[in-house]
Amino acid sequence: MQDQAKRWTAALVVIGDEILSGRTQDKNVAQVATWLNDQGIRLAEVRIVPDDEQRIGEAVNLLRSNHDYLFTTGGIGPTHDDITVDSIAAAFGVPVIVHPEARRILEDYYRPRNLELTEARLRMARVPGGAELLPNPTSGAPGVKMGNVYILAGIPHVAASMLEALSGKLEGGRPIVSVTVGAYAAESDVADLLRETEAAHAGVTIGSYPFAKDGRFGANFVVRSEDEVVAERCAGQLRGRLAEAGYEAVDGGI
Amino acid sequence: MQDQAKRWTAALVVIGDEILSGRTQDKNVAQVATWLNDQGIRLAEVRIVPDDEQRIGEAVNLLRSNHDYLFTTGGIGPTHDDITVDSIAAAFGVPVIVHPEARRILEDYYRPRNLELTEARLRMARVPGGAELLPNPTSGAPGVKMGNVYILAGIPHVAASMLEALSGKLEGGRPIVSVTVGAYAAESDVADLLRETEAAHAGVTIGSYPFAKDGRFGANFVVRSEDEVVAERCAGQLRGRLAEAGYEAVDGGI
Repeated sequence: MQDQAKRWTAALVVIGDEILSGRTQDKNVAQVATWLNDQGIRLAEVRIVPDDEQRIGEAVNLLRSNHDYLFTTGGIGPTHDDITVDSIAAAFGVPVIVHPEARRILEDYYRPRNLELTEARLRMARVPGGAELLPNPTSGAPGVKMGNVYILAGIPHVAASMLEALSGKLEGGRPIVSVTVGAYAAESDVADLLRETEAAHAGVTIGSYPFAKDGRFGANFVVRSEDEVVAERCAGQLRGRLAEAGYEAVDGGI
Repeated sequence: MQDQAKRWTAALVVIGDEILSGRTQDKNVAQVATWLNDQGIRLAEVRIVPDDEQRIGEAVNLLRSNHDYLFTTGGIGPTHDDITVDSIAAAFGVPVIVHPEARRILEDYYRPRNLELTEARLRMARVPGGAELLPNPTSGAPGVKMGNVYILAGIPHVAASMLEALSGKLEGGRPIVSVTVGAYAAESDVADLLRETEAAHAGVTIGSYPFAKDGRFGANFVVRSEDEVVAERCAGQLRGRLAEAGYEAVDGGI
């Protein structure tokens, strides 16, 4: 029972000037969040920080001690602005080393492509001393695991493949079940109904997210719980009360 | 000259379980970042926090004192999960009040629609005591300004209209100019060239963002500076060195 009671949490540090300048639309928050949920781990907090060693280090040291897991995305490529490994090594107070296995992976990746393992490319084999590698099924250069910190690529499809390779390997709890109940109801009209329905079901939260479709207003009500039975019971009651009050349902939400 | 030396910075707190669960893809980070840049203000840090009064309050109190401006998005609607105003009032140590002008705005919004100003809708007129209103050209319910904290809606097009209404009204510095130089060059092949070009231009940063197009690899090199002349000079030199080294250019990047 104690195991079920523990809530596993993770934080995410998104590293990159390109996100903070608005040049690049982040896609890693949503995909890391969704993947963590499948592992029974909640994403509790995200910070987006610039390419700055001190700012990265502060966020990493605080969040790795506040959560079971910390993920980072971005800044592990071959160029001068890729300073994630150096920053995390400094945060842990360890030197940066060339990981022999990572070097071998890069050699095997570049050799058949007739490309030399230049100093810049070898940067991608550098890890904080004591770190392990995370498989990169997409593009050679591995991710890095240092303690409870998982250092992933910033390019979304590369980060996705690293997560995929990690699936099922982290200790977690029960995934959060979410059931969406959609209706053509202005959320301000059903605010009381929502609050009462949530209050009647322990351990359930109901989020309310308005939409407009074909000129009509409505909202998706998202019922979330660790307990699938309770979530379904609450969603059923919510559907019933919305129907009683005369609102047209939108199956599964929009 | 002193004015030019000051760097105006802002932070952003994105509030919402729906972002941290992965259900909703955030779009406010990129649009707030882009808008701030046009105002001559840098987005220095983003935190994404859950619908939790204490977590919202901690982030708000820390970031409003560390930056010239703090923006928040999300949690100002009519339902029970909209707790941003309450959390920020608590963070400031002031009561929540119904703002008379906000009440009038909501009355004027709902009356012609034959809708009653219910208690739930009236929630959207609540502000921390001492706050001012921010115009909402889109959907009635205003945003809120409390000290240097700008409380915006979470729905991206509503947040966008609130920003638009604020354009030119905040004190800022010089906008950052960015010039993108694209080339079919693997970033690992040009890492030295990039580092040297950046080092030769004071106050310039060059970010490197790889892409793959039609099976060919390349990268966008983004030259950023407060000084347009220096940015253009640096970008010109970078273009020249890439051409010299035999890389095909991609005008303006991809």
